[in-house]
Amino acid sequence: VSALYLGLVHHPVRGRAGETITTAVTNLDVHDIARSARAYDLAGYFVITPIEAQRVLVERILEHWRDGAGAQRIPERSEALARCATLDGLETARREVERREGRAPLVWVTSARAVQGAPAISYREAAAVQGPALLLFGTGHGLASEVLEEADGVLPPIRPGAAYNHLSVRAAVAITLDRLFGDTIGDSD
Amino acid sequence: VSALYLGLVHHPVRGRAGETITTAVTNLDVHDIARSARAYDLAGYFVITPIEAQRVLVERILEHWRDGAGAQRIPERSEALARCATLDGLETARREVERREGRAPLVWVTSARAVQGAPAISYREAAAVQGPALLLFGTGHGLASEVLEEADGVLPPIRPGAAYNHLSVRAAVAITLDRLFGDTIGDSD
Repeated sequence: VSALYLGLVHHPVRGRAGETITTAVTNLDVHDIARSARAYDLAGYFVITPIEAQRVLVERILEHWRDGAGAQRIPERSEALARCATLDGLETARREVERREGRAPLVWVTSARAVQGAPAISYREAAAVQGPALLLFGTGHGLASEVLEEADGVLPPIRPGAAYNHLSVRAAVAITLDRLFGDTIGDSD
Repeated sequence: VSALYLGLVHHPVRGRAGETITTAVTNLDVHDIARSARAYDLAGYFVITPIEAQRVLVERILEHWRDGAGAQRIPERSEALARCATLDGLETARREVERREGRAPLVWVTSARAVQGAPAISYREAAAVQGPALLLFGTGHGLASEVLEEADGVLPPIRPGAAYNHLSVRAAVAITLDRLFGDTIGDSD
C-alpha cells in the first residue's frame, strides 16, 4: 500500500451488549498507537470522534508534544505525534485521505468477530495494493456492523478460534502493522 | 517452547541517558500485557519490581479483578489477570519458573539496540525449543546491559534500521508474541 492511514474509531462502535456507542478518547491510545504508526512509517493516524470536547482534548495533547514542554523533553514522542490528527467521523477521514493523496482510499477493517458482506483481504494482498488506504480499528467492543459491512476489505482476525480473544486495541494495531510490513523498512513509501 | 513466561522488568533498566534506574509500575502495563499474554496462551506473566510498595499495588489490582467488583463486571479481564503475578527480581522469577516447571528456564531478551555477548536466537528457533523459557521485556529505555549480556538468547529487534525505533513496551510485547506464535492455537501448550 503506497500510503496507509490508520483510523482509531470512537463512534460508531459496539458496547458490551452489541449496542452502538461512542467511547471516550484515552490519552494512552493517542500516544501508544502514534508510536506504532510512526515505527511502521504510516502516512497518518486519525483519532476519530464526533464529540467536539474530545477532539479539543486531543488537540491539546498534540500541541503539548509538538510545540510545548513535551517536545523538548521527549523529542521522539513529538516525532510520533507529528502525523496524528483528530477528525469528527469516518466520512471526514476518507475525504482527508483523498485530499492529501489525490485519490479516494480503500477502507479496510479488522475485527475479532467474523464479518458478513465485506470481502476478505489477506495481509499480503493489502501490503501489495497500489494507492492509499484507510485502516480502521474500533475501540470499545469493536467497529459497528455497518462499518464492517461497508468496508472494501476485511483483514483476517488475529487469533481465530482462540479461547481468549480480548487483545487491547493497542496490541491489535501493533500486531496488524507488523503482519502487514514485518521488519522491512520503507514498504509504505 | 513448552511453557513461556513473560517478565516485565522495572529494574535493572536503562534511563534516557543509559543510566540504570527503577521505573514505576503502570496499571495499564499490567492490564494490556496480561491480555496479550493470555491471548497467546503464555504460562505466566510476571510484573518484576524490587519496590515492595509497587508489588502491593499490583497485588491490589489483581485482587480487584480476580475476586472483587471487576471480576463480575468484566469476566474476561479477570481471566487475563489470573496468570499474572508480581515478583521482586529476575532471580526470583527464574526460580519461580523452575519451581512450577521442574526445570530452570532459558532466559530470552529483546532489545531495540544491538546486544553484545549473548547468542542470537530466531523467533522460529525460540518457538521450537522444548522446555520452559522466561522472556524479559524492559520498561524505561530497555533492559540494563548486564541482563542482555547474561541472557541465553536474544530475539531479533523488531524494526532494525528503522528511522523511528520507539515502540511502547506494550506494542513490542504484542508483536513479539505474534512473531513467535502467529495465529496458531495451542503452540505454547
